[in-house]
Amino acid sequence: MFTDMACFSAFVLPIWLLTKRRRNQREKGTKVKRVALANMPPLVNDLILRAARGEHVERPPVWMMRQAGRYLPEFRAKRLQTDFFTMCRTPTLACEVTLQPLERFPGLDALIIFSDILVIPQAMGMEVLMVKGKGPVFPAPLRDPDTDFAKLILEPDIDAELGYVFDAINVTRIQARGRVPLIGFTGAPWTLMAYMIEGGGSRTLHNAKRWLYTYPDLSRKLLEAITRIAIEYLVKQVQSGAQMLQVFESWAGELDTDCFRKFSLPYLTQIAKETKAKLSSIGLSVPITIFAKGANHALEDLSYSGYDVIGVDWVIDPKEARRCVGDRVTLQGNLDPGAMYAPKNVLKEKVADMIQNFGVQKYIVNLGWGMQPFMTPTMAGTFIDAVHEAVSRNE
Amino acid sequence: MFTDMACFSAFVLPIWLLTKRRRNQREKGTKVKRVALANMPPLVNDLILRAARGEHVERPPVWMMRQAGRYLPEFRAKRLQTDFFTMCRTPTLACEVTLQPLERFPGLDALIIFSDILVIPQAMGMEVLMVKGKGPVFPAPLRDPDTDFAKLILEPDIDAELGYVFDAINVTRIQARGRVPLIGFTGAPWTLMAYMIEGGGSRTLHNAKRWLYTYPDLSRKLLEAITRIAIEYLVKQVQSGAQMLQVFESWAGELDTDCFRKFSLPYLTQIAKETKAKLSSIGLSVPITIFAKGANHALEDLSYSGYDVIGVDWVIDPKEARRCVGDRVTLQGNLDPGAMYAPKNVLKEKVADMIQNFGVQKYIVNLGWGMQPFMTPTMAGTFIDAVHEAVSRNE
Repeated sequence: MFTDMACFSAFVLPIWLLTKRRRNQREKGTKVKRVALANMPPLVNDLILRAARGEHVERPPVWMMRQAGRYLPEFRAKRLQTDFFTMCRTPTLACEVTLQPLERFPGLDALIIFSDILVIPQAMGMEVLMVKGKGPVFPAPLRDPDTDFAKLILEPDIDAELGYVFDAINVTRIQARGRVPLIGFTGAPWTLMAYMIEGGGSRTLHNAKRWLYTYPDLSRKLLEAITRIAIEYLVKQVQSGAQMLQVFESWAGELDTDCFRKFSLPYLTQIAKETKAKLSSIGLSVPITIFAKGANHALEDLSYSGYDVIGVDWVIDPKEARRCVGDRVTLQGNLDPGAMYAPKNVLKEKVADMIQNFGVQKYIVNLGWGMQPFMTPTMAGTFIDAVHEAVSRNE
Repeated sequence: MFTDMACFSAFVLPIWLLTKRRRNQREKGTKVKRVALANMPPLVNDLILRAARGEHVERPPVWMMRQAGRYLPEFRAKRLQTDFFTMCRTPTLACEVTLQPLERFPGLDALIIFSDILVIPQAMGMEVLMVKGKGPVFPAPLRDPDTDFAKLILEPDIDAELGYVFDAINVTRIQARGRVPLIGFTGAPWTLMAYMIEGGGSRTLHNAKRWLYTYPDLSRKLLEAITRIAIEYLVKQVQSGAQMLQVFESWAGELDTDCFRKFSLPYLTQIAKETKAKLSSIGLSVPITIFAKGANHALEDLSYSGYDVIGVDWVIDPKEARRCVGDRVTLQGNLDPGAMYAPKNVLKEKVADMIQNFGVQKYIVNLGWGMQPFMTPTMAGTFIDAVHEAVSRNE
């Protein structure tokens, strides 16, 4: 009674799809038996957690955004063998490169899990490739508000799709042996939406802007979906072992002040508040950092948005940043990444001045943006040493 | 007594070089008989000059940065036939494309001469190419502080090297027939230095930063040389017919606040003050605008630096910008260029809100950055109409 095609559709295709789905889940999902939080090694250096909570510290903690990256030859050696997203998806590999900076620089006060903000668009069904010399590329970006949007998975199964991140965090937390806390992170809704629409980096973000201005309701729907995913994703990172969280709104500075208030700030606020509430309901609590690059106009608003720490870029004076946020939050940042290319003595002086201006309390030393591939381990070492030296000099 | 080579060096080479130099001067230098300022057509619409000087206006003037550009099909048609820098160097062509936006949009209140900020590095002996899809490229950027720097012409003959700009301004001023004022411009020292070192656009400017931090004295020497050239260049633009001037510090936002104070602000201030003094000594006076993109932290400092107008990007609230500068200057800007991609009614509402927030007096309507190739003439027309409508609505 069945035609051959109908037979294929009714029996073979579903089984094949089911198997494919399971294969994907095995690929992306849990691979390791996770260790419970109660059984984790005790934390030796909790400096960054104390600073984030505004407690008294003997010196400001230091870490570097994108500290596990191409400036390290040991990272490049691993990358030669493996595709970028395969590294993210392989817990042992992600763990290994996450630990690399700490192995080299014991003066670091935190680890950040090796991953990428674009794993959320991937979980929503989008393909993302990391192309050499170009960065992330979406072969099929969101362009048509009807057909493309309809293909998006707005409520993905986070455990199935992003279980590999939780595994990587769990393994890394164990392997870190309590030396320093492990930071988990997510991309913020507007930044992820912009990537999904532009399909990669862009100087103008004109496709994403067209969406915001032309389809504000659909934009909100997308931003809300990403927000929900980000919250669940962050909570599960903590359940797996993350001891602190950071939200990256990398393209905050592309929005005008009105659009920032409409399309970024509400979702950032929701992420902080709901993540904290959900964690609290299961007896967990970690400090959360917001880094909204380029949104120095919004520092005051951000200081009321539920975050413990605000990361700032280098285009604001530390004292002015403190004036904007009062004593409500800890600040993190903000060395010009370009200063890493300075001679040692100049770099050390810049770091000392920065600490002087931010002050030792309620402050986490970092760059104003991530480490760059052209940097060298020596630069990173000098930066970290400078923090330790600046503080002992002040004593 | 002479060897063949010595003979060549002593006699043939100098003559050949002299001829080459004269050929270059003919190529780049004066081609047209300039008309004296006294004989220029009378100015009909001086709205932008009055707004810039802080005088009472009936409505805020409007123009767009990079208004002569690829978003206009008539511009693209010309560009198909001619290389970018050949267009800059051919006064009749530069005049033609400068006038194109006014021919299409009679609601514009200013013209800006078609040229490029990189004509100064060219005048200093550097080669600059405009590469399709890539923007400006220096085949031999400044990298080595000794050998590369030594090749730079720090005191070029401005008339010989940039005479074509003065010709273009002179011709355009006549062809504008007094409809609206003609704006001349220059790149600011830090931005030009960064281009010269990076050799083109860059996300990190790490080569330029390395120079600033490693060779601060040499950097100052270079910045001072560019400053001197920029001043002479601006004065001569006014002598040729420019009725207003703008200085573009496009990469101000890449400098941290300390570096901005050291390596940008002093030269910007010197340019405003010395240009004004030199013009005054020959009985001339025009308003000057500074646009230091991304340096919203420095608005207050800039308001004391001798400029009549400060251009602002879209990452600051108009009222906050006004608060920073007091009533010392006229403000210009700051629509998010991305808003041009909005539906007509949304774009018009954004423009109306912007005018409401900046206020009608001491304000020049513009985008927060230049027009983009992906924009359309319809968008520009809607933007300009919106300004005229917003004001008549307020009456």
